[in-house]
Amino acid sequence: MYDLTLDPAPRELNSAEDLERRLREIGAERYHDKHPFHHLLHGGALNKGQVAAWALNRYYYQSSIPIKDAVVLSRFRDHAVRLEWRNRIEDHDGNTHGEEGGIERWLVLTDALGLGRDYVTSTRGILPATRFAVDAYINFVREKTPLEAVASALTEMFAPQIHRERIAGMLEHYDFVNPGVMAYFTRRVSQATKDADWALDYVKTHATTPETRQRVVEALIFKTNVLWVQLDALHHAYVGGMIPPGAFRPEDLP
Amino acid sequence: MYDLTLDPAPRELNSAEDLERRLREIGAERYHDKHPFHHLLHGGALNKGQVAAWALNRYYYQSSIPIKDAVVLSRFRDHAVRLEWRNRIEDHDGNTHGEEGGIERWLVLTDALGLGRDYVTSTRGILPATRFAVDAYINFVREKTPLEAVASALTEMFAPQIHRERIAGMLEHYDFVNPGVMAYFTRRVSQATKDADWALDYVKTHATTPETRQRVVEALIFKTNVLWVQLDALHHAYVGGMIPPGAFRPEDLP
Repeated sequence: MYDLTLDPAPRELNSAEDLERRLREIGAERYHDKHPFHHLLHGGALNKGQVAAWALNRYYYQSSIPIKDAVVLSRFRDHAVRLEWRNRIEDHDGNTHGEEGGIERWLVLTDALGLGRDYVTSTRGILPATRFAVDAYINFVREKTPLEAVASALTEMFAPQIHRERIAGMLEHYDFVNPGVMAYFTRRVSQATKDADWALDYVKTHATTPETRQRVVEALIFKTNVLWVQLDALHHAYVGGMIPPGAFRPEDLP
Repeated sequence: MYDLTLDPAPRELNSAEDLERRLREIGAERYHDKHPFHHLLHGGALNKGQVAAWALNRYYYQSSIPIKDAVVLSRFRDHAVRLEWRNRIEDHDGNTHGEEGGIERWLVLTDALGLGRDYVTSTRGILPATRFAVDAYINFVREKTPLEAVASALTEMFAPQIHRERIAGMLEHYDFVNPGVMAYFTRRVSQATKDADWALDYVKTHATTPETRQRVVEALIFKTNVLWVQLDALHHAYVGGMIPPGAFRPEDLP
């Protein structure tokens, strides 16, 4: 359903360096650190209920990532890629030796915001737009080429910076936040850097024509849309006050 | 990805009449005639660029309906159901004897709003949230049971009324609208009534336990979310003024 029609200004991508430059441009134009909701979140302008709405919705995204990554893993016959990609599932799910993963760390944040775990993990109160965007991501990596599936993870190139801003901003501004609560992001700074380096190297090596490089670019634009839509929906519902039927209402918080 | 967690107040659905009553309640609570964007649209409060944004985005929905219906059709071994359901594809796609369908009539509307057909049909300028919501609908009818696939079309029970309001309101308020432009909706009043009667009868007959009736209810809630998300995104972008990167900008209209 997605096609090569997202990039308003496709250009000749004649080398791996052209590709990397274009990917960084897209990050500068479209990554969700530019979204007004993040400015409000990191600047301390939201109340606890609004932060809870963000954490509740983003739980659906976080908890879908290992599912998405399992689909990506399933697309590769190449054993070395599968070994590398499996790290991502472990980063989010933890392991059976008792090491916690990112989802568990996310629930520490929703705990601190007063959200019950059963409610959070049921995903009953999330915005429908969150579900549609996240599910689109899972379907994208199932339906597109393996190269595009890897490329859609490239937003991680831009993640460490936003995580650092978020940790500093939220610790400074919100009394319901402490370093333990922010453990998810602290851990992701190093994980995302490592993962992004690998994925960037992969697409630079495996996209060897202008056409396949353009597909990599489109995959990154698609993914920036997945992230942007989630913040648009949060902003409309919880800053603009137009909460859709059935979604979480901050006044229900204890 | 969707599960039986959408209905905040599931109740005992012990008969076909219980089911129909609950479906009508959901329509009264959640159908998108309740959305503020429709009040603005039908009341003449939008400018031409805002109406164009609505028509452009809704083109993606309209043009995806025969694809969705082909997936539904493909789920049935029952020849009689396939024959019935094929009418829906013909209603939107027309036929090879030169009879136009709903998509063609929709393009008459986008013509009147000054949108080029190549631009409209490329879907390049639509909101990402529109694409995610519509694609979620196609995936829903692919992944759920055939009964739920039929049930997700039940928003048609409530469509004739909104079409009548829209025709009257838009003809009264907008000088770029005339009866020819509104032909899509005029035709849908009778088509939707016939289709809704069939689908309602189908779910009342084939959902024979409280559990399957609840699945029908959830499918309708899902579909009301698909419609609501599209209006939320339009409202945020074109009434609230937060147009996401890459989407149609009304100032680009000729």
